[in-house]
Amino acid sequence: MAPPPKYLTGDSAAINDFINRFDVFLFDCDGVLWSGDHVFEGAVETLELLRAKGKKTIFVTNNSTKSRPQYLEKLTKLGIPSSTDDIFGSSYSSAIYISRILKLQPPKNKAFVIGEAGIEKELASEGVPFIGATDPAFRRDITPEDWEGIANGSHLDPNVGVVLTGLDFHINYLKLAHAFHYLQQGAVFLSTNTDATFPASHSFFPGAGSVSSVPLVNMTGKKPISLGKPSQAMMDAIEGKFQLDRERTCMVGDRLDTDIKFGVEGKLGGTLAVLTGVSKKEDWEAEGAVAVPAFYVDNLGDLRAGAA
Amino acid sequence: MAPPPKYLTGDSAAINDFINRFDVFLFDCDGVLWSGDHVFEGAVETLELLRAKGKKTIFVTNNSTKSRPQYLEKLTKLGIPSSTDDIFGSSYSSAIYISRILKLQPPKNKAFVIGEAGIEKELASEGVPFIGATDPAFRRDITPEDWEGIANGSHLDPNVGVVLTGLDFHINYLKLAHAFHYLQQGAVFLSTNTDATFPASHSFFPGAGSVSSVPLVNMTGKKPISLGKPSQAMMDAIEGKFQLDRERTCMVGDRLDTDIKFGVEGKLGGTLAVLTGVSKKEDWEAEGAVAVPAFYVDNLGDLRAGAA
Repeated sequence: MAPPPKYLTGDSAAINDFINRFDVFLFDCDGVLWSGDHVFEGAVETLELLRAKGKKTIFVTNNSTKSRPQYLEKLTKLGIPSSTDDIFGSSYSSAIYISRILKLQPPKNKAFVIGEAGIEKELASEGVPFIGATDPAFRRDITPEDWEGIANGSHLDPNVGVVLTGLDFHINYLKLAHAFHYLQQGAVFLSTNTDATFPASHSFFPGAGSVSSVPLVNMTGKKPISLGKPSQAMMDAIEGKFQLDRERTCMVGDRLDTDIKFGVEGKLGGTLAVLTGVSKKEDWEAEGAVAVPAFYVDNLGDLRAGAA
Repeated sequence: MAPPPKYLTGDSAAINDFINRFDVFLFDCDGVLWSGDHVFEGAVETLELLRAKGKKTIFVTNNSTKSRPQYLEKLTKLGIPSSTDDIFGSSYSSAIYISRILKLQPPKNKAFVIGEAGIEKELASEGVPFIGATDPAFRRDITPEDWEGIANGSHLDPNVGVVLTGLDFHINYLKLAHAFHYLQQGAVFLSTNTDATFPASHSFFPGAGSVSSVPLVNMTGKKPISLGKPSQAMMDAIEGKFQLDRERTCMVGDRLDTDIKFGVEGKLGGTLAVLTGVSKKEDWEAEGAVAVPAFYVDNLGDLRAGAA
């Protein structure tokens, strides 16, 4: 059993000791830095404090609808200084996985994508050919010709070697039918992330896992490789890109089942939970908790006490 | 362990004995009577033979996209004599369940429906008020106003007490988001059926379970009551309508996991498997088979040998 996490809020000495143990901080964003359009008090100053101490800060998000440049825009709009290089999203993670790990041989290296523009941009940045996604040809009702063409294969692209599913606000029967048939023909099954829901408009809405991944799992009996937290495929991709020392890296997040689990299973030197998001103290104190953080604070801004 | 099924093909005495044991025969259709638009040889004559012997024949289908009158049209087009009263589909089963078993008190007795016109027609026939389904207001992209309105409840109908999901060729994010929020607010979760796939165009396509039921199970952690085979809620509805004696009733089908399981768990007097559809002899001979039929024939038409 994991030891109980150390509470840092209000304890300057413990905070300084905590900060000194790490060179790299991986940040979940929603629930940690902001909620909706509201940036938490002290969040920006905490990032600045860590950077002033020479720490690297990386934003790790399961949001697959935005590419890194699009996510940078969002951070900038919220007043959070960053650069594209500090952003690691599940679309980028997926693109890297396809181009650098799967390394499918052309011409059978095309991805059939269920998802939004963020995935397209990241696949293009890694030179991965793709179809589907935001193409209007797939944003429509299924027709009698489609039934025939999908069934007999004449509507299927013989060069599709991967099906990549993410959050898609334009999910439809036509896309699911295509993805199902590509998977039945042996395409590799990848998901940007498998979140059941995601926070929006101060509520929750259907997530990537629910709208595109789980339906195909149910149809095929196959499970996707997920390229988002808590999947270690994402951690491997982060480590590969930043050449980080896991022992000197800390994951900061609000969810035990994604963020903290991601850090614990990745054998990072530490994990920090904040209580401004989904998970609460009772969650890790409960028997059979999905993951227990090493440290916790009430708010990320509490780390400012380490400035002295 | 169930005893091995008795093989009837070519054995007139055994066939006569089999037919004499029952008053009612429940028929699965696709894979038993026909495949695609091809009616199997001898299927119609077998139905006629059974009726000539005074047996009741009922068509039991998980197809929720068609109402009973629509399904009758299909049977008629294929040359299979029937009447609306002999047809029992999962949409009808769902409508009966809502109106006669759930008996929700007005005004909070409205159903939010994911599905096609067949469900609408059957709900209307039982006087169940509903929204969603084929209404163009729900066949469109989600807008910024929808996000806000669904999250704050202003877009939700306070009188929805049931979410009913079926096969929907126009599935989209807007419908899934509405259904998710209704379920979170405590609506009863029903599915016409939970088939992962269904046969079409000599192939398989995404089924009701995959496109509408499983996504909501993943989002909510709740499981629906299914009103299709092999759910016993459907058997109870059939028994209620036809006042049948289960001991004198036989389920005829091609799938162990839906048809034969349905009959075995419903404690019917018998089950008959045909080898013209999905399941094969090896499937019930395998260890841990999902269900074992009591009888089997190669083709339904083999029962014609019982005419003598």
